[in-house]
Amino acid sequence: MRYDRGISSDWKSHLRVVLVATRNPLNIGAAARAMANFGFSRLRVVHPYDAAFREARSAVGAAPLLAAAEECPSLADAVADCRLVVGTTSVGHREPRHPIRRLEYGARVIRRALARAPAALLFGSEKFGLSNDDLSHCHWLMRVPTADPDLSMNLGQAVALCLYELARDPMAIHARPERLQPATAAENEQITALLLEVLRQSGYVSPVTAASTEEKVRRLVRRLEIPARDAPVLLGMLRQILWKVVA
Amino acid sequence: MRYDRGISSDWKSHLRVVLVATRNPLNIGAAARAMANFGFSRLRVVHPYDAAFREARSAVGAAPLLAAAEECPSLADAVADCRLVVGTTSVGHREPRHPIRRLEYGARVIRRALARAPAALLFGSEKFGLSNDDLSHCHWLMRVPTADPDLSMNLGQAVALCLYELARDPMAIHARPERLQPATAAENEQITALLLEVLRQSGYVSPVTAASTEEKVRRLVRRLEIPARDAPVLLGMLRQILWKVVA
Repeated sequence: MRYDRGISSDWKSHLRVVLVATRNPLNIGAAARAMANFGFSRLRVVHPYDAAFREARSAVGAAPLLAAAEECPSLADAVADCRLVVGTTSVGHREPRHPIRRLEYGARVIRRALARAPAALLFGSEKFGLSNDDLSHCHWLMRVPTADPDLSMNLGQAVALCLYELARDPMAIHARPERLQPATAAENEQITALLLEVLRQSGYVSPVTAASTEEKVRRLVRRLEIPARDAPVLLGMLRQILWKVVA
Repeated sequence: MRYDRGISSDWKSHLRVVLVATRNPLNIGAAARAMANFGFSRLRVVHPYDAAFREARSAVGAAPLLAAAEECPSLADAVADCRLVVGTTSVGHREPRHPIRRLEYGARVIRRALARAPAALLFGSEKFGLSNDDLSHCHWLMRVPTADPDLSMNLGQAVALCLYELARDPMAIHARPERLQPATAAENEQITALLLEVLRQSGYVSPVTAASTEEKVRRLVRRLEIPARDAPVLLGMLRQILWKVVA
């Protein structure tokens, strides 16, 4: 299974990441970098600190994405072409005026909406989050599930988590990676025999327990599940040790 | 369904987050903050820049976690009590010498291991990632799936994504949030009647098409799926408008 199968598909181009009143240029840069990392491209900023936005634009890394970022005079402008507008929050709201959906569930709803039409995902300022006025433009809110709901989240990390969950392939959890090719029984037996010879020559094996030692060593070698590519290396080591031991 | 059901359970205390040669105090702070956000507590640092570590320790937010962070003289010391050691990478390795597992899959394996014994998750320096020497301590590597494998990832974001996936509740995707209670048919019909009256008084309804207009308005009101709590607000608005219109 390849993760990248959906990367260039249209739905990702339908997402508008909207940063509202962001103050720190590092956070604008981190948001842009996360977008690039997960294959999203449309960044909009609403009244950021001018200097911060200029500084972020000139930073390395996510340059093309930031250069193409649109500066909007108001939030209404930034979301005008969207048919779904979702605000993000990491802090627990005491009196939610909007339905709040958890990231895992909300991302699925957004993904479905993006298949049909543009949608906006809003992130507020580092210090205050989205204002009540900002929130009134939203259909619902999405919450990053944190251990302590009163612990706010770093803006760049919140953007990365939301985009990761949007781009996440739920099938990937089952995509067992290829296992290393294990050594053949013949190779395991070669290693066993050589190790036993080294042990015998080193005086490790007593004649009384020789038979049981041989079985122990054979079982131990099988438990190691030696990969095929390591078998020749181990044989080489043992041969060299044997040469030294019998010298 | 509550997300927090596993938060205080033992497996999270088994994870050691190990930062190797981190240079930027903001990144040490961001890592600590992400750990606090997702309920992990054991942070270890291996030869960080001294000044950076001191500066990060004195930052606000994740203070208790950072104060308890252990500074280890070597990576071997930092992982000594772990039965599983996993390195992280976001850049695609051209010639991987280790099995590489994708985040979604790898996190599941780590979660299972943590249920039994301590395990370490390693993050390298911002500039160079983990060295080959660091990697030789790892059982396998975990990769954050990015759109462009050559695009490296912000350290704080990488830590947040890995811990989010570890703490992620796969069942949450099915946890449909409570829907808003919809208005009753009686409330919808009241709104319809009042809106029609306003339209009649405003001269919107022509006598010829009155019957079909009434049906159109009734259907429109049902399509709005008005929540119960908004019904009285709408009725209040319509009553006020009607009062003005007939004045």
